[in-house]
Amino acid sequence: MGQGNMAATYTVVPDGSVTTPQGFKAGGLHCGLKKTTRHDLGAIVCEVPAAAAGVYTTNVFQAAPLQVTRESIAGGKLRAVIVNSGNANACTGKQGEADAYEMRSAFAEAIGVPAEQVAVASTGVIGELLKMDRVRGGIAELPARLGSSYEAADDFCQAILTTDLVKKEVCVSVVIDGKTVHIAGASKGSGMIHPNMATMLGFVTTDAAIGSEELHKLLRQVTDVTFNMITVDGDTSTNDMLVAMASGFAGNDELHAGHPDYAAFAEGLRYVCEVLAKAIARDGEGATKLVEVQVRGAESDASAQAIAKTVIGSSLVKSAVFGADANWGRIIAAVGRAGVPVNPETVDIALGDIVTLTQSRPVAFDEEAALVYLKGDTVVIYVDLHMGEGSATAWGCDLTYDYVRINAAYRT
Amino acid sequence: MGQGNMAATYTVVPDGSVTTPQGFKAGGLHCGLKKTTRHDLGAIVCEVPAAAAGVYTTNVFQAAPLQVTRESIAGGKLRAVIVNSGNANACTGKQGEADAYEMRSAFAEAIGVPAEQVAVASTGVIGELLKMDRVRGGIAELPARLGSSYEAADDFCQAILTTDLVKKEVCVSVVIDGKTVHIAGASKGSGMIHPNMATMLGFVTTDAAIGSEELHKLLRQVTDVTFNMITVDGDTSTNDMLVAMASGFAGNDELHAGHPDYAAFAEGLRYVCEVLAKAIARDGEGATKLVEVQVRGAESDASAQAIAKTVIGSSLVKSAVFGADANWGRIIAAVGRAGVPVNPETVDIALGDIVTLTQSRPVAFDEEAALVYLKGDTVVIYVDLHMGEGSATAWGCDLTYDYVRINAAYRT
Repeated sequence: MGQGNMAATYTVVPDGSVTTPQGFKAGGLHCGLKKTTRHDLGAIVCEVPAAAAGVYTTNVFQAAPLQVTRESIAGGKLRAVIVNSGNANACTGKQGEADAYEMRSAFAEAIGVPAEQVAVASTGVIGELLKMDRVRGGIAELPARLGSSYEAADDFCQAILTTDLVKKEVCVSVVIDGKTVHIAGASKGSGMIHPNMATMLGFVTTDAAIGSEELHKLLRQVTDVTFNMITVDGDTSTNDMLVAMASGFAGNDELHAGHPDYAAFAEGLRYVCEVLAKAIARDGEGATKLVEVQVRGAESDASAQAIAKTVIGSSLVKSAVFGADANWGRIIAAVGRAGVPVNPETVDIALGDIVTLTQSRPVAFDEEAALVYLKGDTVVIYVDLHMGEGSATAWGCDLTYDYVRINAAYRT
Repeated sequence: MGQGNMAATYTVVPDGSVTTPQGFKAGGLHCGLKKTTRHDLGAIVCEVPAAAAGVYTTNVFQAAPLQVTRESIAGGKLRAVIVNSGNANACTGKQGEADAYEMRSAFAEAIGVPAEQVAVASTGVIGELLKMDRVRGGIAELPARLGSSYEAADDFCQAILTTDLVKKEVCVSVVIDGKTVHIAGASKGSGMIHPNMATMLGFVTTDAAIGSEELHKLLRQVTDVTFNMITVDGDTSTNDMLVAMASGFAGNDELHAGHPDYAAFAEGLRYVCEVLAKAIARDGEGATKLVEVQVRGAESDASAQAIAKTVIGSSLVKSAVFGADANWGRIIAAVGRAGVPVNPETVDIALGDIVTLTQSRPVAFDEEAALVYLKGDTVVIYVDLHMGEGSATAWGCDLTYDYVRINAAYRT
């Protein structure tokens, strides 16, 4: 969908995944952390030390693996990232830290790379210690499962899921210096059943030649307009992590701000992250549809972001969308409490093509058409403040009975 | 419960209401704004110009009656407040403003007082014009219905409700200069069905002698720790308003900061507002229980307030409480994203008497006892940061299937 926004400088690669970029292998298996037989341990490995960058949750309580990964990425290079699902290794104290360091060193040894070049990610139950015997067993088997095939990538994408209903992956190609560069990603999203899952993980691979500092700068910029603009229920987990690795195998001149194709790479990276972020929102707990809020005409992009996030996060708006209720009163009430400058006389609101408010005054609209539109699987809410040039887009989902059912479930 | 917090300097008056303080009459009737036969127009009238103060919603979009009431209260004196339910007269443009001014002048004329001493409040559907013919008819009948009896006060309390399940009123007495002073209040809370209700209204009457500036100062202080510490779904309405009127009939020396009984009056006012605020939270849409979050040991009261509001507003915490799930992981995750200083190593969390986390480490607890406690009609979550002296309490409710059902309902 991002392609609709501007002239596409990238091409989506059908069936592309994290192993499509040259130099990467991946894999996954079931080691016994999940009660089911679904995969719960996976890894991405690069043939060479890849330029690496990471962005992390802003939650004060950060899980042990985040500390280990920060340490590894501080060196600027990664050979691999090892991920488990089923247990977040969060709020687990000194033992949790020791376990995260052991995951790093054990996998580094298993594939013969320095421990300082391995990142660790965990997602799952908070406050319980990892079953390290099972993790060790899985790590021993994992190297033999690594490959570049679509199936190997699929094993990885499956291994990072918790209560997600679908796996999330995407790959695009961009032409840089006449060379074809691939940018791919995989993510897992919001599931918080039983008793409490730590939410978002994202992994990006590319064969572009780019330095780790440049990659980090771009990753942060892109995260602000993609992963940081989605919300399922406003809660921020203790384990959120996005890690990017660049092998350089595409053979382009190293990318930097002055490079003629820099913008093309940045746009490709943005699209990959937007697809992964929207997939997380659409697959939000209990969600029946994707909701997109586009704000324009704000005093600044920051104002527009604050308004977009307030509207997308409103339980009243989310419930109305679930009920296919064209309830613009709740949208304008959310706009008005976002805490940023708004002219109460100049707001337009539309649901898809259906205009409900112009210059802050109600407009008669076709309720039947609105009902049909809101029953679709994607709902776009447009807000125009007519104050300036600021704009932003946020993504979320509707609030449903299933959200309550899932999150009210007893821990058993 | 407020009484539990400190030596009570006030006494609750059984069956007390807004007409218990000397000098006040009230009443209500059905004029036809609600589809049901329930009351939808009411008023409180003071025999003399009462010292008056008001606090209003922070929403950028403020309904027409708020502008009119601000204007009246700017004069410092009120003889009356006229209230309708069923229609919020919000986002109704110039006609809405004209209608609000007409409500004020028509009722002022009907009871023979200056229009500038009448406040106007509305709650109900946003974006629809008032049916003024019905409002006029009601205003013509209302003076004959005014009285000081409990029944007359009850008519008023009923007239301000929208989808509230129960009326909300309280009265206390305080001794000032050896004189018995009454402080009473009525409120209506969160109902947002059909299609969108503007939420909270509160009215306080007292026979204390106090200047309007002093009353305004106290009302703002008290609102910050009562009405501003409740949340049902985080949405702030366009019509929220709290109006206080003081007749002075108790005959005490005029209250000011230096008065020996000033603290007693302030505490009585705080208790009245706390009872009304908690009643709104407990009667939140779809709520099955009242949730109270007590934060202590924060760097400052402001930090404690931010944390208490983040926890009480978390959809995950609210869903877990509905499910009687002792899900402390969600509580600590909310504490960690409140955006204020928290030491990740020193947090204690308890549900009632059941300690689940000490110094940020999980504590084994009796799941059965936790289940029994969480199934009760009031749940208290304690958070101690062990950082400083800051403390705060917030109130809310659980997130239930009924909340979604109510707010997903089609407008018909």
